Amino acid sequence: MASTTWQSLVRPLVQKLHPYVPGEQPKIKGLIKLNTNENPYPPSPKVIAAVREAVDERLRRYPNPTADALRFKLAKLHRCQPENLIVGNGSDELLALATRAFVEPAATKNVARSKATVQFFTPSYSLYPVLANIHGALCNAVPLARDFSLPPLQHSQWDFAAALTFLTTPNAPSGRGYPLSQIEELCAAQKGVVILDEAYVDFARENAFSLALKFPHVLVARTFSKAYSLCFQRVGYFAGHSGLIEALQKIRDSYNVNGLGQAAALATLSDLPYYRANFKRIVATRERLSRELALLGFDVLPSQTNFILACPPRFSAGAWLEKLRAHRILVRWFNAPETKDFLRITIGTDSEIDSLLRVACQICQGE
Amino acid sequence: MASTTWQSLVRPLVQKLHPYVPGEQPKIKGLIKLNTNENPYPPSPKVIAAVREAVDERLRRYPNPTADALRFKLAKLHRCQPENLIVGNGSDELLALATRAFVEPAATKNVARSKATVQFFTPSYSLYPVLANIHGALCNAVPLARDFSLPPLQHSQWDFAAALTFLTTPNAPSGRGYPLSQIEELCAAQKGVVILDEAYVDFARENAFSLALKFPHVLVARTFSKAYSLCFQRVGYFAGHSGLIEALQKIRDSYNVNGLGQAAALATLSDLPYYRANFKRIVATRERLSRELALLGFDVLPSQTNFILACPPRFSAGAWLEKLRAHRILVRWFNAPETKDFLRITIGTDSEIDSLLRVACQICQGE
Repeated sequence: MASTTWQSLVRPLVQKLHPYVPGEQPKIKGLIKLNTNENPYPPSPKVIAAVREAVDERLRRYPNPTADALRFKLAKLHRCQPENLIVGNGSDELLALATRAFVEPAATKNVARSKATVQFFTPSYSLYPVLANIHGALCNAVPLARDFSLPPLQHSQWDFAAALTFLTTPNAPSGRGYPLSQIEELCAAQKGVVILDEAYVDFARENAFSLALKFPHVLVARTFSKAYSLCFQRVGYFAGHSGLIEALQKIRDSYNVNGLGQAAALATLSDLPYYRANFKRIVATRERLSRELALLGFDVLPSQTNFILACPPRFSAGAWLEKLRAHRILVRWFNAPETKDFLRITIGTDSEIDSLLRVACQICQGE
Repeated sequence: MASTTWQSLVRPLVQKLHPYVPGEQPKIKGLIKLNTNENPYPPSPKVIAAVREAVDERLRRYPNPTADALRFKLAKLHRCQPENLIVGNGSDELLALATRAFVEPAATKNVARSKATVQFFTPSYSLYPVLANIHGALCNAVPLARDFSLPPLQHSQWDFAAALTFLTTPNAPSGRGYPLSQIEELCAAQKGVVILDEAYVDFARENAFSLALKFPHVLVARTFSKAYSLCFQRVGYFAGHSGLIEALQKIRDSYNVNGLGQAAALATLSDLPYYRANFKRIVATRERLSRELALLGFDVLPSQTNFILACPPRFSAGAWLEKLRAHRILVRWFNAPETKDFLRITIGTDSEIDSLLRVACQICQGE
């Protein structure tokens, strides 16, 4: 065995992978963190209390393997059946499971190209191509229009038979919401599974949840991370046809959702008015930030999310990133052709946004 | 799209799967639960306090994506580098990742049989074949000797080139520990990756951790679930060559380990004497249970874990399962040819074990 090097032990496909790069989680205290779309407000005091109360000798026990209490409560909320729901270790886990349940690896014998294809628009959530690559699937990355709206379905590059299509709606990093009618048209045209990734939908005017119950091939992804201030505890879910949900249940880890995460999500559903008030505050702050940045010369895209995408004046977006960081403000910059001129700024508290605006003003005035 | 049924959307491989069946987590209160190898003792009071204290506004933030604080502390404990460690959402997640990182799906074009083979002994952790099937890999299930000891390596069925070999040590459901020399011999003979799954090792006389640092193709799996009373929070880890660890890091979910789980595991490592005292207690109870069941006519296998495997007298093991359940005592029975004559009994508290012995005595006397 001495002659074996570890390289030969790792699948060539995995050796070639470039992993997903999550936004920076800085170790320095006191930074204004507007880079990973976290909610600036804490969970409801009732949720904090409920989770604290759940920290007892039960930690020694396995959690409910199918998150039953949570699925039942979600089913009531969404007027569907528990069989229409699967809970995951964040919605990221479920996006990965979907890739493995619905898409064939491209190196499979006698596989049709579409059956091995993961399709998505670009720019969008940068995890999708990573998931496709990990699975050895093909990517069909279809460019959005220059204003980040959906291109017509007749786009020459669109594959109506793709095994899996991801649509982030509202989209990240653009912040743009797509009209329900357009989403429905896309779903109706598609032969493979379509996942409507609604991670940011609580900050939007409308949602497409109804399509998950209308079409047998459409799944809607939701998460407690952003809108419900629970990033730390990793709870997301999918809704859709029980047949697709069952396929995902079969291939997940047996105890995929930690117990305190289940407890936190359950308590969250008992205090929705607290969160709805938060959404309103965040949307109000978003609109104010958009207006004031526009006055400073930023080109701000209309947003339906808890972040904005904005093209800054005077300096390049990359230079702005550094200048803001020098003032202890973290935002995100995606160095890709379609996004390199923009900054993505998470909506913080009003006082955080005041600080950002003050610093932005200084930078505009050449400091 | 109306003509598409959901069946055609799910990969044929996934449609055929039989999922892993976890042990029952009963909803009825007051049962004596000796069926899923949970620790009968709660986590240390310091761990409970540390987790409660971590339940605050930080829940809105993403957890550390690479569990750095935990990996650093584990590296000190095990005298290795943080690069030799990956933390998972329970060790189950890592076992699944290993299958995907090191094994080719069998339907891949031009793949050698061994490169697509997951190898393990049987009976052993019943998750391994499930993981292989989910990935579309081949299973090489090699029978243990009748007394559940390791067969000689010259066993005609053994594949020295298998891409991935799982060895649970000490084994479940037999409870048997394998000598380190025999484990090392097996590792030295193997060309593919070997995972030594040490979920129960804290209850054993020796461990094989050193082999993960000695061989570039050997990984050791550990978990906080059983010995450290943290099933609820899903924290496990692998140790081994940084090249193999990096391959696993590349394909995991970005934020795979929930934050309160990380906090709990970290606090656990600061209070190891509490847990070591627990291990002694559990081992003492195990030895007492083994002796007393033997007096009742049970054939009890020697155990190095927090459970025993025992062949009961008078009635079949399946009948015992039902009779114990009627007395509100849950144990586990695996209805497979090699295990169908045995019950697997988790070591509970002394008072739980007293109840079990009292009921077993009644059943033996024909009630």
